[in-house]
Amino acid sequence: MRAIRTVLLSALFLAPALTSATAERFAPNAQEFSLANGMQVVVIPDHRAPVVTHMIWYKVGSADEPPGKTGVAHFLEHLMFKGTPTHPNGDFSRIVAEKGGQENAFTSTDYTGYFQKVAREHLGQVMELEADRMANLVLGDKETAAERDVVLEERRSRVDNDPGSQLAEEIAASLYRSHPYGRPVIGWEHEIKALNRADAIEFYNTYYTPNNAILVVAGDVTPEEVRALAEKTYGKLARRAEPGARVRPAEPPQRAERRLTLASPRVEQETLRRAYDVPSTSTAAPGEAEALDLFAELLGGGPTSRLYQSLIVQQKIATSAGAWYSSTALDDGQFGIHAVPRDDTKLADLETAIDAVIAELIEEGISDKDLERAKTGLLASAVYAQDSQSRLARTFGAALASGETIAEVQDWPDRIAKVGAAEVIAVARKYLVKERAVTGFLVREQAKPQEQTGNRS
Amino acid sequence: MRAIRTVLLSALFLAPALTSATAERFAPNAQEFSLANGMQVVVIPDHRAPVVTHMIWYKVGSADEPPGKTGVAHFLEHLMFKGTPTHPNGDFSRIVAEKGGQENAFTSTDYTGYFQKVAREHLGQVMELEADRMANLVLGDKETAAERDVVLEERRSRVDNDPGSQLAEEIAASLYRSHPYGRPVIGWEHEIKALNRADAIEFYNTYYTPNNAILVVAGDVTPEEVRALAEKTYGKLARRAEPGARVRPAEPPQRAERRLTLASPRVEQETLRRAYDVPSTSTAAPGEAEALDLFAELLGGGPTSRLYQSLIVQQKIATSAGAWYSSTALDDGQFGIHAVPRDDTKLADLETAIDAVIAELIEEGISDKDLERAKTGLLASAVYAQDSQSRLARTFGAALASGETIAEVQDWPDRIAKVGAAEVIAVARKYLVKERAVTGFLVREQAKPQEQTGNRS
Repeated sequence: MRAIRTVLLSALFLAPALTSATAERFAPNAQEFSLANGMQVVVIPDHRAPVVTHMIWYKVGSADEPPGKTGVAHFLEHLMFKGTPTHPNGDFSRIVAEKGGQENAFTSTDYTGYFQKVAREHLGQVMELEADRMANLVLGDKETAAERDVVLEERRSRVDNDPGSQLAEEIAASLYRSHPYGRPVIGWEHEIKALNRADAIEFYNTYYTPNNAILVVAGDVTPEEVRALAEKTYGKLARRAEPGARVRPAEPPQRAERRLTLASPRVEQETLRRAYDVPSTSTAAPGEAEALDLFAELLGGGPTSRLYQSLIVQQKIATSAGAWYSSTALDDGQFGIHAVPRDDTKLADLETAIDAVIAELIEEGISDKDLERAKTGLLASAVYAQDSQSRLARTFGAALASGETIAEVQDWPDRIAKVGAAEVIAVARKYLVKERAVTGFLVREQAKPQEQTGNRS
Repeated sequence: MRAIRTVLLSALFLAPALTSATAERFAPNAQEFSLANGMQVVVIPDHRAPVVTHMIWYKVGSADEPPGKTGVAHFLEHLMFKGTPTHPNGDFSRIVAEKGGQENAFTSTDYTGYFQKVAREHLGQVMELEADRMANLVLGDKETAAERDVVLEERRSRVDNDPGSQLAEEIAASLYRSHPYGRPVIGWEHEIKALNRADAIEFYNTYYTPNNAILVVAGDVTPEEVRALAEKTYGKLARRAEPGARVRPAEPPQRAERRLTLASPRVEQETLRRAYDVPSTSTAAPGEAEALDLFAELLGGGPTSRLYQSLIVQQKIATSAGAWYSSTALDDGQFGIHAVPRDDTKLADLETAIDAVIAELIEEGISDKDLERAKTGLLASAVYAQDSQSRLARTFGAALASGETIAEVQDWPDRIAKVGAAEVIAVARKYLVKERAVTGFLVREQAKPQEQTGNRS
């Protein structure tokens, strides 16, 4: 039940590297079909253990919220555990627990997902429960208000007590001038406070309908078994709404280099973070997203990367440094850089050093050896990801809910293998420009300006 | 037909100072009443010449636009000159011109206004024309598309060819993380391109109704004459819609100091601009807006102000420097600072110097003599404003459309007169903090980062 950002999902692809690269298709046995009511189904057979991962992904996230209602997607995610006429009072979680299952839920900018991992014989019951709450959620004013307090407390503990989370919110808010990706997934506190039962129900009635949902089942089942169970459960549900095309306000051209400073006495570790507005797999020209994946790996993907070698090993001015590319998004993606200064290195000097590393990498170009090593790292992490049933399910669910196709997910290793060094440099030159970036500094609280000047009266 | 910001209206109060202050009520003879259909009417008799200024203010502006439809308020303002069944093909402007009248229209974040200045005997006909297009606008797809091209060209020439306007857009976009004041009034280019007839008509049908309009007539008329004419024209219109309360997404707490740089080879004059998110007259605690007015005057209101004296006269590091407070807004106001560096002064050094002036003013406090001089300046400018019939009308229209009352406008001089020096310092300490500010630098284009490092390969 956490508010997560799509950024976390990309982290799947940044695991330790194997020693050799293979461009095999990702999860080649994944299959998909649709139910008559429009529900999309993906099945990823995995017969190593008699266990299944069952996920429902709604194609709606915080970026789909009406203005002034930030947090309603995540709030509804919490409320989905309240009950229905046939399964009231938190029955859902109690039944899953009684069967020895695990469950969770999560909200992102582009999707909301519900997850259970159970022994294979309980799959039918889990699907019955999930189908029930897709159509029959019942909410009382009192329990809705109580859950709002839970969410407010979640925001307080996760964001408002954490300067690092505040910085992340501020960077996103400055990065997007028009697109709702600039709003926090959990919502702004003052808007969470104003959310009520009617807001949640309206959101539910607009978006929680089988034709806006994706069922992903990974585990010890066949597509035929899943189809039979799905038709008996989800297949009986009527289309409750037609959410239509997912069109959000688009970003105007990025023109100004932005920089912000969040100062707090609670900062223990000064930090630099930068985000660039770049295309995602869904919006990029062919090959560009994969080239950005490789540039992130080369620039900041672990101890062999340029940032690590330069800032930590050679210059000794940072204790950590890295880069990431969040490719999975319905609209724009993000390319990020982060670093923690060592000893009394100033953040401004660290930033200058980072800019020099980027400039140098672009100017020098990329050797065949480095490119192969980066590809090996990325492709190996994709192989590792397939080793986890829930990662498999999450990778497909997130990608499909963000506008990608099954084939695009499966072909990703092949596309990575085909990228040339010149293409990697070209996307860096094109997108890693200051006008597209917000650079955030997390600093220890300083005296306020009016206290820095002596009293001359 | 220009897209203007509320900022311009506040400039009314920054005119040259008279030598003595009076706390007389502003436009004490202004009167108001309502029509049966809910239309608010303000009459400001002014019998110096047989001329009237007639204005219709709709309580809708760019901050009321649906997400993804930036620019529709301003686009509709353009389209209002197209025609109705009884007055097609631009009749409106032709008739006003034939009578020797002047006309204009303007869109802001909080309102859209239409203006005519005519000889008093033509007032009835102007009201008839304006009432007609309030209810009977006819738009064809072809002329709507053609007008969209006009607006796009307006944006290109006013914003996209002007780095200073781009900087202003970027500052607003970074200042507001949630509130639609962050969107440009004229709209983002890509969203203007997508506007069509249906968008304009929906906006028109939602907001252009007598119960959402304010009629302001200033000039050689009596309230009784205006009432009779208004009942014959606007009074016949039905309420076409109920726009309801004007609730926009509110800003979360401002936490991070933001800084942005817009670099362009077209920049001829490097410039620093800063905006702080502060309360407006409509949202401030009693006395705070007036104290901010006085702080702006003391800090940057002309040649006697601290910024001018310090940066231009003493330090000789700037060729211009000033401060302003935009108090008229339905939601938050803005406090602004601007400066142009002299010779080769760096913008960062200019910013440091500005911060020192602010800190010094707050620490030193304000002498009785300085406070009196600032009050004299503000109050005199209010007296001057009454000398212009159209300024009078605009002052009331903008204030009323932004949530103020007639009495609040009239009592402003009295509230200014009552502010004490401690209150002025208190609001500066409270609101002029870096966490509430976006500082923008307009700089001549520099080489891109990747071109700054030599090729080491």
